[in-house]
Amino acid sequence: MQVAMIQDKIVPMAELEPIYLDRGIYFGDGVYEVVRSYNGKIFALDEHLRRFTNSLSAIGISQVDVDRIGRRVQKAFDAAGIADAKIYFHITRGSAMRNHVWDANLEPNFFLTVTELADDTQEKTDGIAVSTHPDWRWKRCDIKSLNLLANVLAQADAAQKDCGEAILVDDHGLITEGAASAFFTISGQTLQTTPLAANILPSITRKFAIEAGKRIGLQILEKSLTPQQALCADELFIAVTTKGIVPVVKFDGKPIGDGKVGKYTKSLIEEFRSFI
Amino acid sequence: MQVAMIQDKIVPMAELEPIYLDRGIYFGDGVYEVVRSYNGKIFALDEHLRRFTNSLSAIGISQVDVDRIGRRVQKAFDAAGIADAKIYFHITRGSAMRNHVWDANLEPNFFLTVTELADDTQEKTDGIAVSTHPDWRWKRCDIKSLNLLANVLAQADAAQKDCGEAILVDDHGLITEGAASAFFTISGQTLQTTPLAANILPSITRKFAIEAGKRIGLQILEKSLTPQQALCADELFIAVTTKGIVPVVKFDGKPIGDGKVGKYTKSLIEEFRSFI
Repeated sequence: MQVAMIQDKIVPMAELEPIYLDRGIYFGDGVYEVVRSYNGKIFALDEHLRRFTNSLSAIGISQVDVDRIGRRVQKAFDAAGIADAKIYFHITRGSAMRNHVWDANLEPNFFLTVTELADDTQEKTDGIAVSTHPDWRWKRCDIKSLNLLANVLAQADAAQKDCGEAILVDDHGLITEGAASAFFTISGQTLQTTPLAANILPSITRKFAIEAGKRIGLQILEKSLTPQQALCADELFIAVTTKGIVPVVKFDGKPIGDGKVGKYTKSLIEEFRSFI
Repeated sequence: MQVAMIQDKIVPMAELEPIYLDRGIYFGDGVYEVVRSYNGKIFALDEHLRRFTNSLSAIGISQVDVDRIGRRVQKAFDAAGIADAKIYFHITRGSAMRNHVWDANLEPNFFLTVTELADDTQEKTDGIAVSTHPDWRWKRCDIKSLNLLANVLAQADAAQKDCGEAILVDDHGLITEGAASAFFTISGQTLQTTPLAANILPSITRKFAIEAGKRIGLQILEKSLTPQQALCADELFIAVTTKGIVPVVKFDGKPIGDGKVGKYTKSLIEEFRSFI
């Protein structure tokens, strides 16, 4: 008799709940999004659903009605009744006996959570410290997939160094992005960040940060840079859906500029609020 | 109220089963092994448990008693009563609200399945076709982690080309290994395979294949090679726990040698049986 075992308990395979056979857990065979709400309204849901569509398509999960996913997100958000919420959702290819090659008839699994998300005003006022870590991720970071162990290990390393984010550095010695954020420098009147390619996520907050930069009169330069160049920048910040723009005042243990939140970063945080 | 949603159904977060919050599904934050039995006896369990220990340690899951895992494997195998079985097991860091950085007190989740595994004698007699695919995996393939989407996509591509395995090729144009197997060439009396490093799995069947090669008098060369070199080899095969040694007779659509299973590969399959 084919069996499963959960911790110490043996379960006949026929009685196993399908979630245990989710290809999300076997292979990370799924994609996800995180959106947030401000004051009872979900921010940039359409942009996130467009990216979700691209991620699904990139890994060949084709039978998903993304408009319906949008309605589910809204329905769950309404049911939760949390004004400032983090909404996480993923779709995996489905549940099946473990086999790399999948059956075309699999029904995808949808999962979502709505949780409270308080704004960390302290981080925005004081800035955070970041540390670099080798970018161990796969070659398709443009797909927002559930394969995130490299990100997890990099952030754990950063946390051990009392840093709030890990900045990933590739084999060529170039910064790609943060483990869970986009990364920006400001030098003179130039706002610089890694160009979009398969090695980084097309971050939605990155897009808004660039738009905010244009509005306050900064030149935009989409070009990779080294940790050494980041250290010499006037200002640094990260951009991430859950937090918006967060100033970075320390990089690998060394202060940036005078070690305080820079003037342009402050302006960008203000400008970003106008999008909400 | 914080809520979850499973397909169309809203569930209060407090009532959600912990498996839905498994870090295995959120991040692929876990490691696994596949062992098999021949004729009622598990093959090379100690070797697999040693590698499992290394994988756990590499991602910082420290509170696991691996001897106890070995006893669980044996107990489940005994309960199943399947003489020729595939035993899959994984440990994830545990279940928790989604956050890259983990709580040190998390209790790891163990999951195992015992299923029937028939030997595919046809494959061993006729050989299989393989096709190349870019190696999109992360930089720590020495860790047998649940981040396997690159492997899944490569195998799906191979299956579309009627191939039984994808052979992964890195940015330098060198073969690393199969998406779910080790890869070998035989040219003259030399058995060649990729050297062990962070970019490939320390395959246990690879080790037995090398030992079998020595026993039948082949020279062993652990050196990377290109697809072009593989095409010009006398014989090719893959090695994988679930199947042992499987001859490869076609590579990217072109026959290897005379397109039939080679003499040394046949000897290796015979020799491999002596380990069982």
